[in-house]
Amino acid sequence: MTVTVAPEGVPLARVERALEEIRAAIGAGHVHTGEAAQEFRDPFWPRKWDEYESSAVVQPDGVEEIQAVLRIVNEHRIPVWTVSTGRNNGLGGGSPRVKGSIVMNLRRMDRILEINDDLAYAVVEPGVTWNQLAAALREGGHRLMVSTTDLGWGSVIGNSLEHGTTYLPYGADFMAPCGMEVVLADGEVLRTGMGAMPNSKAWHTYKRGLGPTLDPLFMQSNFGVVVRMGVWLMPYPEVYAPLWANFARETDLIQLMDTLRSLRLDRTIEGVPNLYNTIELACLRGTRTRWYDGDGPTPDRIIDQIAGDLGIGRWVLHAGLWDDRKVAEHKIEKITAALTRIEGATVHFDQYAPEDIPGIPNPGDRVLGGEPNLEFMDILGWYGKAESGAHAGTGMVAPLDGKSAYELHMLLRTAIETKMGLDYLAYPLLINSRSYIHVFGCIFDAADEAGSRRAYQACRMLIEEAAAAGYGEYRSHIDNMDLTQGTYSFGDHAYLRFVERIKDAVDPNGILAPGKQGIWPASYRADRG
Amino acid sequence: MTVTVAPEGVPLARVERALEEIRAAIGAGHVHTGEAAQEFRDPFWPRKWDEYESSAVVQPDGVEEIQAVLRIVNEHRIPVWTVSTGRNNGLGGGSPRVKGSIVMNLRRMDRILEINDDLAYAVVEPGVTWNQLAAALREGGHRLMVSTTDLGWGSVIGNSLEHGTTYLPYGADFMAPCGMEVVLADGEVLRTGMGAMPNSKAWHTYKRGLGPTLDPLFMQSNFGVVVRMGVWLMPYPEVYAPLWANFARETDLIQLMDTLRSLRLDRTIEGVPNLYNTIELACLRGTRTRWYDGDGPTPDRIIDQIAGDLGIGRWVLHAGLWDDRKVAEHKIEKITAALTRIEGATVHFDQYAPEDIPGIPNPGDRVLGGEPNLEFMDILGWYGKAESGAHAGTGMVAPLDGKSAYELHMLLRTAIETKMGLDYLAYPLLINSRSYIHVFGCIFDAADEAGSRRAYQACRMLIEEAAAAGYGEYRSHIDNMDLTQGTYSFGDHAYLRFVERIKDAVDPNGILAPGKQGIWPASYRADRG
Repeated sequence: MTVTVAPEGVPLARVERALEEIRAAIGAGHVHTGEAAQEFRDPFWPRKWDEYESSAVVQPDGVEEIQAVLRIVNEHRIPVWTVSTGRNNGLGGGSPRVKGSIVMNLRRMDRILEINDDLAYAVVEPGVTWNQLAAALREGGHRLMVSTTDLGWGSVIGNSLEHGTTYLPYGADFMAPCGMEVVLADGEVLRTGMGAMPNSKAWHTYKRGLGPTLDPLFMQSNFGVVVRMGVWLMPYPEVYAPLWANFARETDLIQLMDTLRSLRLDRTIEGVPNLYNTIELACLRGTRTRWYDGDGPTPDRIIDQIAGDLGIGRWVLHAGLWDDRKVAEHKIEKITAALTRIEGATVHFDQYAPEDIPGIPNPGDRVLGGEPNLEFMDILGWYGKAESGAHAGTGMVAPLDGKSAYELHMLLRTAIETKMGLDYLAYPLLINSRSYIHVFGCIFDAADEAGSRRAYQACRMLIEEAAAAGYGEYRSHIDNMDLTQGTYSFGDHAYLRFVERIKDAVDPNGILAPGKQGIWPASYRADRG
Repeated sequence: MTVTVAPEGVPLARVERALEEIRAAIGAGHVHTGEAAQEFRDPFWPRKWDEYESSAVVQPDGVEEIQAVLRIVNEHRIPVWTVSTGRNNGLGGGSPRVKGSIVMNLRRMDRILEINDDLAYAVVEPGVTWNQLAAALREGGHRLMVSTTDLGWGSVIGNSLEHGTTYLPYGADFMAPCGMEVVLADGEVLRTGMGAMPNSKAWHTYKRGLGPTLDPLFMQSNFGVVVRMGVWLMPYPEVYAPLWANFARETDLIQLMDTLRSLRLDRTIEGVPNLYNTIELACLRGTRTRWYDGDGPTPDRIIDQIAGDLGIGRWVLHAGLWDDRKVAEHKIEKITAALTRIEGATVHFDQYAPEDIPGIPNPGDRVLGGEPNLEFMDILGWYGKAESGAHAGTGMVAPLDGKSAYELHMLLRTAIETKMGLDYLAYPLLINSRSYIHVFGCIFDAADEAGSRRAYQACRMLIEEAAAAGYGEYRSHIDNMDLTQGTYSFGDHAYLRFVERIKDAVDPNGILAPGKQGIWPASYRADRG
């Protein structure tokens, strides 16, 4: 007996039988249990906490092996939690919502199926990472850039399916994905959009098909297993011009957001600009003890001192231009004029040829140039625990106006600092011209159970406080999915009841990721009452 | 007894009883039968043909009245076909797919619920027309432009739900809609995206929510009745610069499409540029007899003569810039240089201040400036039948490359001209940077049954021929919905079977628009076999 955890109501022996069948179908070397499965577990959830332990991790390669796994788990009624690379850290990593689920990790499906130079897109499997795609583009001489997230080790598909943000023009409104192949709970293979036409030439070039559009239905959902996706790429511009700007006062957020809204609405600024508060950026430049060693949140006067030392102010803006040289020059002039109307602001642009992006010293500037890396991991060392450093927190959606932004910012800051005694990291992302995601977080030590509990508790409290003020989480940690979904309660939870009707229709045995984003199949809802 | 048509298997008396109840619920003056209902019928379907006759037209106003109608038709098991204004002409107008359906026309719900100047969006009900919204923006001094279709009498919501194309930057990839309120078949009210949070501030500013995104699921579908939708608007640019360019040879399409793809991929050209072939533009400038009076398709030498007379060549490009003056000037230079590389091309830009758009003489240029009108109706007079002139044809999706475009163009032209003996109108729309919709049509006289039959027959044949070559229809005439859906057959029609599972789950009695885009509820599928 290799299995020590099983879903509630499922005997260990039944899980074991299912795994035996899966071993026969995909090879014993691709089924991991016990200590071997721990690698795939959420690294930020204290090791002693077992709410989200999987029974096993299985790694099928290809549609047929996935179909075999799904047939077996359907037969044995064992939930399966699909992840691509399993790097959803900060939101549950590769751990399943339901204890004892079998995690289906698709890291082995790591083929880039197509790079189309003329039509500027790639087609990838779930195991393809941002690093891998960026490297393939560069090394293949394709002169195409991928809109990437910071951390290059994650999956392009996995990240996109979770509404993960990226920074280049196709990052705005999550525009990059186009056209999917999906394995349904019963093993059927569905192609979305124009892909539903067997010999379609436009599968990965057109966003819709005939009838309702399904791509967005397979995101943040548990309706199918996406095994192939198109990703739009951007041809090299003449100039890549990353922008860094600093703003002295916390209240500058108001004028800054209003200014950025104007610059986005007229398409001067594209992509997904982001802000750092002082602490968020300081996390990337050092550990806390460099400036402060006291308990509780770092005091305002120290934050000012950090801002002075690093020469960054209370808010830092990072954005990019990807344009013809003449257009970039006009925009630089216009943006500089608009931002320096904010008293004390400093604005700095660099200009690079796209070929030179891999050699840019600042890793953040490489990211906005389509070259991901792992630098952002450095924030975890803030409290000096490089090994067990962890973070919690996600982001709230707000309209892109200064007044709302400052209200939400202060709500989050006050709660994290005064009620939890932790430092508050803010990282607002301007996802489009009308709304932004106020990403926030607190750093803690996953080896410290009490501290971890405090951090996760802070997040739960913030979800409720923000919802009361009209701000909703854009994606949820597995530990908060029901809580967060509960805040989307209009019409006696009409949204949830509608998507759960779909869930029951397309996955009658409820085996695909039960509980994901609070969406439960009928059998679990009976328990929910 | 006022009803003369009923759905198959439904006694007239049952329809009559249902209508009595509806009259009681919404007022007798808002229930139309017999001759009074004919106004809402497809004007392009010969009057003698009765396949798509409704039993009645009902016009509820507001959510409660819609709920009342739905309760009644659920009880009596009578299908209801929802239209907004009912101007889907060329695709079935306001006629239902299933004969005897009750048409629910939402023209009375014509309120503009909000115009948000800061965040640049409007919120509309289904009866709000493009004309109405454009006028409200202009007359209210809002300095905002709506991405509109040509014909201003149609519904903003209705058009958007059918994947109707519009021309301004938010027309690309159908970007404008954001956030819906939907009445489900059982009368429940659902809000999509952030609207699912009761007090959300970002309902009409952010494209997703928590969990799967539903907006696109309610487009080209029969899953609910959309009663409210956000529409993104564009702030006035410094300069609006419409572009007209002419290309001498039919084969120039190849180089032109490849050139436009480059100019779109680098974001020099935004929005949805379109092409006219000579005949399509000639339809707007006169009747056929001005140049030719023979039977069969207008011969090539006459087409050249038309092109010469009108000074337009074989292809005409219409596009716009909406930019800062300096950016527009750079783009004008760049676009002119790129297009004039095509031998014999002529390129003309005008430049206007947004305030001057209502006074622009060319109605097409007003459309790209956000001011719809009815000029496009003039194409119906090509064969000299201004009263009963009609058109048939939709559009096929293709990747945006010259080779595909020319292949698809010649396939459509050859079939319409040689097999049907009709003139071929082409109107390709560049919906994004990677794909385009090859809109095509033939003009006929709806008073002439034989001619009408030939025209509709041509469309059916083209759907099949184009599908065999890998090109799929982007929306379908009610008469072709099954045929077209049948071409999206990957995986033994996996797409259709998946959406029909959803259909059964969310509309168990199958009362909402059965057959729309080929999607049938279970009771009808039994008949389908």
